[in-house]
Amino acid sequence: MSMEQLKRRLGQVSDLRAAEGLMSWDQETHMPHEAARVRGIQMATLAGLAHDIFTDAQTGVLLEGVQAQDEVEQALVRVARRDYERATKLPTAFVEELTRSRNEAHHAWVEARRHSSFATFAPHLTKMMDLARRQADLLGFEEHPYDALMDAYEPGMRASQVRAVFADLRDRTLPLVRRIVDAGDATDYSVLERPFPAEAQKAFAWRVAGEAFGLQPHFARQDESAHPFQTNFSRSDLRITTRVEPYWPACLFGTWHEAGHAMYERGVSERWERTPVSRGASLGVHESQSRMFENLLGRSRPFWNRYFPQLAQAAPEVTAGLDAETLYRAVNRVNPSMIRVEADEVTYNFHVMLRFELELALLEGSLQVSDLPEAWNARMNEYLGLTPRNDAEGVLQDVHWSAGLIGYFPTYTLGNLLSVQLLEAAQQDIVVAAGVQQAEYGPLLSWLAENVHQHGRSLTPEELTLKATGRALSADPYVAYLHRKYEEIYNLS
Amino acid sequence: MSMEQLKRRLGQVSDLRAAEGLMSWDQETHMPHEAARVRGIQMATLAGLAHDIFTDAQTGVLLEGVQAQDEVEQALVRVARRDYERATKLPTAFVEELTRSRNEAHHAWVEARRHSSFATFAPHLTKMMDLARRQADLLGFEEHPYDALMDAYEPGMRASQVRAVFADLRDRTLPLVRRIVDAGDATDYSVLERPFPAEAQKAFAWRVAGEAFGLQPHFARQDESAHPFQTNFSRSDLRITTRVEPYWPACLFGTWHEAGHAMYERGVSERWERTPVSRGASLGVHESQSRMFENLLGRSRPFWNRYFPQLAQAAPEVTAGLDAETLYRAVNRVNPSMIRVEADEVTYNFHVMLRFELELALLEGSLQVSDLPEAWNARMNEYLGLTPRNDAEGVLQDVHWSAGLIGYFPTYTLGNLLSVQLLEAAQQDIVVAAGVQQAEYGPLLSWLAENVHQHGRSLTPEELTLKATGRALSADPYVAYLHRKYEEIYNLS
Repeated sequence: MSMEQLKRRLGQVSDLRAAEGLMSWDQETHMPHEAARVRGIQMATLAGLAHDIFTDAQTGVLLEGVQAQDEVEQALVRVARRDYERATKLPTAFVEELTRSRNEAHHAWVEARRHSSFATFAPHLTKMMDLARRQADLLGFEEHPYDALMDAYEPGMRASQVRAVFADLRDRTLPLVRRIVDAGDATDYSVLERPFPAEAQKAFAWRVAGEAFGLQPHFARQDESAHPFQTNFSRSDLRITTRVEPYWPACLFGTWHEAGHAMYERGVSERWERTPVSRGASLGVHESQSRMFENLLGRSRPFWNRYFPQLAQAAPEVTAGLDAETLYRAVNRVNPSMIRVEADEVTYNFHVMLRFELELALLEGSLQVSDLPEAWNARMNEYLGLTPRNDAEGVLQDVHWSAGLIGYFPTYTLGNLLSVQLLEAAQQDIVVAAGVQQAEYGPLLSWLAENVHQHGRSLTPEELTLKATGRALSADPYVAYLHRKYEEIYNLS
Repeated sequence: MSMEQLKRRLGQVSDLRAAEGLMSWDQETHMPHEAARVRGIQMATLAGLAHDIFTDAQTGVLLEGVQAQDEVEQALVRVARRDYERATKLPTAFVEELTRSRNEAHHAWVEARRHSSFATFAPHLTKMMDLARRQADLLGFEEHPYDALMDAYEPGMRASQVRAVFADLRDRTLPLVRRIVDAGDATDYSVLERPFPAEAQKAFAWRVAGEAFGLQPHFARQDESAHPFQTNFSRSDLRITTRVEPYWPACLFGTWHEAGHAMYERGVSERWERTPVSRGASLGVHESQSRMFENLLGRSRPFWNRYFPQLAQAAPEVTAGLDAETLYRAVNRVNPSMIRVEADEVTYNFHVMLRFELELALLEGSLQVSDLPEAWNARMNEYLGLTPRNDAEGVLQDVHWSAGLIGYFPTYTLGNLLSVQLLEAAQQDIVVAAGVQQAEYGPLLSWLAENVHQHGRSLTPEELTLKATGRALSADPYVAYLHRKYEEIYNLS
């Protein structure tokens, strides 16, 4: 009886969030722009109702008294209890202050970035860090306040673990960056900006997302938006977006990245439909799927051996005079740069490590907000040998801090690490391995569905990693992968 | 204080309905088809929450105790009280029975129409009529149970009024139909199916909807769907849909029809944003706007004198060898036919009168459901000289009865009548009249915004008609319009 009531209540919350998600998707893709003001109010109403229903005392009573009959219900109650505890630990007054401060900080950040002026954003960041510390205290933690914040994105992960893994990763890949830079690069990368009509870019990216990665039109669709994203309103209703620019790899690899997120959500067992279990285990595990499709597969030699002819058909101007190998090398350019979202596989993680280290220092108080730009620039120089010309291409480049998302950045790199660890575990199966060598990913997709996707949030990231790969998360596979791939491309051995 | 609480509550209801509306729009336009099952559950949740919040006893307490400070608030309380009373008169058990029976009747109708077999639908229609009688009793009425039902679509309108107006209309336009049919028609209508590429149809229809009728992309958009419709989620977020077929006028006039609905919603005063006042006064008044754009303007000679050159540019194959006058005559073909939604301006209302008369007879019990097909066919023959070959193109053609929508059909003809009455009132203003003669509708749109649109539901249809046209609704203007227009086209004088 109370299980039915609980499921009904969780179903309502799920439906309200789906509606809010659709409103958000629509806002980014199709909505007439004058509609923005009222749309904001409507979305706030839906979010508020979902929150009210979920955090209502009656939910607590149901969660307390309910009897789980099987593993599916056990997972449901476990995850819902966890969410309920987290959601009810923050007093309404604090949540309202947080929401208000985020809005103010976000507007200040937009302006600050436009004028490349950190000073106007600084007081807001100070406020966000203060709220983050108070939030961590309210949520509670054992080792470090950072753990309480990161827990929202990467359940169970601790700053101490991230610190250890990142230190290992840094020490073992910084020399690789240096060797690549020192080697020089005479490749002609102009192919990456050859004319590729917008509709053809989108169509090619979407067709390959279906053929290679299994994302089919009867349960998914592709649209355009300013910033690519994935969202979904059920496992049969997945939406990915892309954008088209002269640098055409942005559309292709971006689409396959979002396809990785979408296929994860697609694979979660139907048994948890309309419940809080029905999502990826964490942002890190999610990113492992998107980066696997985007980089480990999409930027692999077998992939381009297979798909080069289709690209040649879709965009003859792009491929004129080239072969699969040239293209493979062009899309794997390593080039230390200022902007995280444009970074390659080798340098990307340094952008993340830098942010993680600065977040920790700010939270601990060992770094003052006013000293942040200097600390940022110093580290950029240390890691990538670059100095931002201004704050806009330095410390102000990301939206996250303005939205109060402290503890979020590490998930990008955790996802990169896990992507290789998972792919290698999958390739223990010789059918999967043979498929990957021929860019035939059906067996791999089945393996991922079985070992990663179906579990949704019923396993923690740590449990999932252990179960799927037989070991805890480690930098080893990723470090070895980078060396293998880029020593060959840059002829370093 | 309680006014703020009331507005907050009505705002929540409005936001939930907007979300449900967006889910519905998305379902008809963009949604991957496998998503249908869960989407149905999600929409039911939103509808249920909106209904629960609105009919909660607390809403009644607020409506009882609230003090309106000005005319805007007075209208708000009046309309909300009216809705609340209507919504709370039906017991939950009855609403559930109605919903269940509608679903069953709808599925039975789909099957019955497919096999053109009225017999399989008959028991469901009997049930729907029984429920309609009980619903009328629960809602209450003074003269006729039909009034209680029609009140949902045309507030305040009575069957006795409709009967009188329709009798007048029938007596005065049936001879016109006969004269047109007897006159014969040697026109070549093949132009209406000349090749007109799908994208060009949509683009032309949409561009004219903007240029002629004011529907602009910053607050509206156009999509494709199987059945054209208009919906909106605020006055700054209007969505119309169209469909493309070989008979290209369907796309053009359908688009301008929906543009009429959209511009009505656009024009409702912002003062009632997110309240139940913020919609058209009734389906009839709504239809007056859509039919005005579609027929009175879109099928007028000045319109085609102005837009023929643009059509020639958009679709040279369609206009080859033609001029504006030929096109004007082609799109005004009068042709008695079996199907309501394909009917012309002259015969359309006979389809509606037939349904109204049969609904009344069924509700009163003077006609048995089993005798309905025969009664339908007899009347089709009397009015339009046609006999349906089967039930699918006869009594089973419309979805309305299967959905329990009794009392809905008259609004189509009431809208037609009102469209001419309003346009003539508007043209008392010589600037409006001069504009209409040049297919320059800016002044007319301003007149409509001022005299019709802005009021939303704050005036009843009767009040609005009187205020805007100086007289009660009458068949006179429409009858005179038909004679004027079609005597000239068919050279009947």
